Amino acid sequence: MTMTTPPDAAVVTLLTDFGTVDHFVGAMKGVVLAIAPRATLVDLTHGIAPQDVRAAAFALLAAYDVFPAGTVHVAVVDPGVGSERRPIVVATARHRFVGPDNGLFSYVLDREPDARVFHVTGSHFFRHPVSATFHGRDVFAPVAAALAAGAAPEALGAPIADPVRLDPLHPQADPHGHLRAAVLHVDRFGNCVTNLTREHLPHGLAPDGAVLEVNGRTVSALRRFYAEAGGNAAEVFAIWGSSNFLELSANRASAAALLGIGPGDPLLLRPAGASEP
Amino acid sequence: MTMTTPPDAAVVTLLTDFGTVDHFVGAMKGVVLAIAPRATLVDLTHGIAPQDVRAAAFALLAAYDVFPAGTVHVAVVDPGVGSERRPIVVATARHRFVGPDNGLFSYVLDREPDARVFHVTGSHFFRHPVSATFHGRDVFAPVAAALAAGAAPEALGAPIADPVRLDPLHPQADPHGHLRAAVLHVDRFGNCVTNLTREHLPHGLAPDGAVLEVNGRTVSALRRFYAEAGGNAAEVFAIWGSSNFLELSANRASAAALLGIGPGDPLLLRPAGASEP
Amino acid sequence: MTMTTPPDAAVVTLLTDFGTVDHFVGAMKGVVLAIAPRATLVDLTHGIAPQDVRAAAFALLAAYDVFPAGTVHVAVVDPGVGSERRPIVVATARHRFVGPDNGLFSYVLDREPDARVFHVTGSHFFRHPVSATFHGRDVFAPVAAALAAGAAPEALGAPIADPVRLDPLHPQADPHGHLRAAVLHVDRFGNCVTNLTREHLPHGLAPDGAVLEVNGRTVSALRRFYAEAGGNAAEVFAIWGSSNFLELSANRASAAALLGIGPGDPLLLRPAGASEP
Repeated sequence: MTMTTPPDAAVVTLLTDFGTVDHFVGAMKGVVLAIAPRATLVDLTHGIAPQDVRAAAFALLAAYDVFPAGTVHVAVVDPGVGSERRPIVVATARHRFVGPDNGLFSYVLDREPDARVFHVTGSHFFRHPVSATFHGRDVFAPVAAALAAGAAPEALGAPIADPVRLDPLHPQADPHGHLRAAVLHVDRFGNCVTNLTREHLPHGLAPDGAVLEVNGRTVSALRRFYAEAGGNAAEVFAIWGSSNFLELSANRASAAALLGIGPGDPLLLRPAGASEP
Repeated sequence: MTMTTPPDAAVVTLLTDFGTVDHFVGAMKGVVLAIAPRATLVDLTHGIAPQDVRAAAFALLAAYDVFPAGTVHVAVVDPGVGSERRPIVVATARHRFVGPDNGLFSYVLDREPDARVFHVTGSHFFRHPVSATFHGRDVFAPVAAALAAGAAPEALGAPIADPVRLDPLHPQADPHGHLRAAVLHVDRFGNCVTNLTREHLPHGLAPDGAVLEVNGRTVSALRRFYAEAGGNAAEVFAIWGSSNFLELSANRASAAALLGIGPGDPLLLRPAGASEP
Repeated sequence: MTMTTPPDAAVVTLLTDFGTVDHFVGAMKGVVLAIAPRATLVDLTHGIAPQDVRAAAFALLAAYDVFPAGTVHVAVVDPGVGSERRPIVVATARHRFVGPDNGLFSYVLDREPDARVFHVTGSHFFRHPVSATFHGRDVFAPVAAALAAGAAPEALGAPIADPVRLDPLHPQADPHGHLRAAVLHVDRFGNCVTNLTREHLPHGLAPDGAVLEVNGRTVSALRRFYAEAGGNAAEVFAIWGSSNFLELSANRASAAALLGIGPGDPLLLRPAGASEP
């Protein structure tokens, strides 16, 4: 493992469903800075819908790997706070992740087969007394700070082999050999991130490749950039997004609104010549 | 006073009602960094409703004490900006607070009986010319930066004994000996923070203790953690919150919506056997 | 040029239309910190309406100059992402600006006649592969980090003389000699920032000076501070705002709502004795 920053200046990212109106995120940061005064704090997002573990797992996947080696990612979307669900640390070659064991780190684990997972039992790292409702402040922030200050994951608890996992992101083949895909995320601009990657579209979209069926409409144009679609804001097209997933987009308009779809909605990828079964 | 960080790396927290869409918070940070380049900036919240001094005072109370010694908290909810209301600094054993003298620091002062308060008159610390509408940038940010860079509160102005105070948070006994309490805050999840503390519930809630009357409903269950309530999202229960106040909550649902209540609404705490008078 | 902070601790501000719900801003910060680990990151705002270049240009203008010398401002409101529009760097005596060449830096350029502009062609500074949809992460953040780490603007590409410019902010005289002005921005509190400056009101407002006509109403009071208007929240008055523009405001109320106006709406400044033509 290469550490590009000294341990006392490690980056600590925060991702929660706490919003930014309450004091919760600020309190977590205060705890981190009281333990690791030179940590650099970065918000990934605090706008995850309450208790939406899957959306949080996707946001982590989309953002984690651009951060420098040594970064600690603390993620708290935690409907089981105060119960027996385990606090865990995930250690990859370059990063550390801290949060509840409820699937938050599933997609990172899918992409990082060599990651190790630890059940955090070293309660002397926690802030005491530990509240029943705010482990972000009392458990996860101090553990993240300890890691940022140089603690080894092994010092926090024993390795485990059975972290909670979400269903993988990849689409499923149906009996016709078509791919049943899904919308993973709709961003601020209305772009719909799907779970289709380049391996699923070896020949692109129509005319030589496939077409997408989505909510009764067909999408067959694959654009290279948004403005390529010109002034027709009503045209929905596909585009390779910045997280390497195929996205459904429109130029200066919301594809989600034009298509009437949202996170979790299905798509079908089929050959251009076939019809919707 | 123990300083855990060198003065040039002091934490400066910011709490305002400025929102995050305008440039106001960014401008305050620019002013701080121009004076104290190594300050660590942390947002407590900028989502206080415009001019809601009481909500700001509560957010400060809930968050301030986890920050390291030496932290400077600058708070700007300031309907009197530009008028004769005083800029003040509150100095406790561990922290400094900067903002307008309108009650913002009341709840901190209630909890910190040894705090000293200073009227900031040293206008050479200000950014000139001082605008009439943005003392966050021109008065409070530069004063916070001066404190973060090591200035003593005494250097900013004379001590005062009469800062503006809000009504204290604690509930009042009614003629029946019951406690008239109130909702202090509703958080993003719909949890209703009350002004009841453990001293008010020596025997917990029913069957051995008390019950809460709120908007025509009775709450008598005291849960240890959210998920203890299981799948019944319609059940409203009480729980000890992370700021040591009793909260009304529901599991994966908004207690505020279920009860139809909001900040400032009343509650009655009475013995389990008594009836609502 | 005076650098008040060592290059490795330069301030990097970020302004985008990305919002704060997606991971986009976090990803940009990760890229900056991987290249310039000791940069101090400050959000100007991420709440610019999607693709609203003019609003972004105004926010930059309002905030940039309070930041310390050496600050790098990266701004990404970029409907042309992935097309041939140029990435540029604007260099002033004290600051650097990075973003797409679409007018974002127009108002800064209006105020900084000695600024130099460079077309960034040094693609070895970029993050590869460069996506077609997220140059904030792949082009502008790494260029900002390179500047924060000490790269000279000249090292990034050749100077250009024809950056895209928006219409200047100043009002226009009409055939009657009255000034046709406009609302530049409405802030969170409902204050309406106009493009009128002190040079346009040498005698203030009525009775000795001018009056403003706006949406069928006349505004003739020039207040020194908000609370000067007292308890009459329905009174709309003018006030010199913190960016040195005249603003239309109300005390603890939204002037924009009271007047029924928004960004881009027209105002007429005429002598007190004249009538609306």
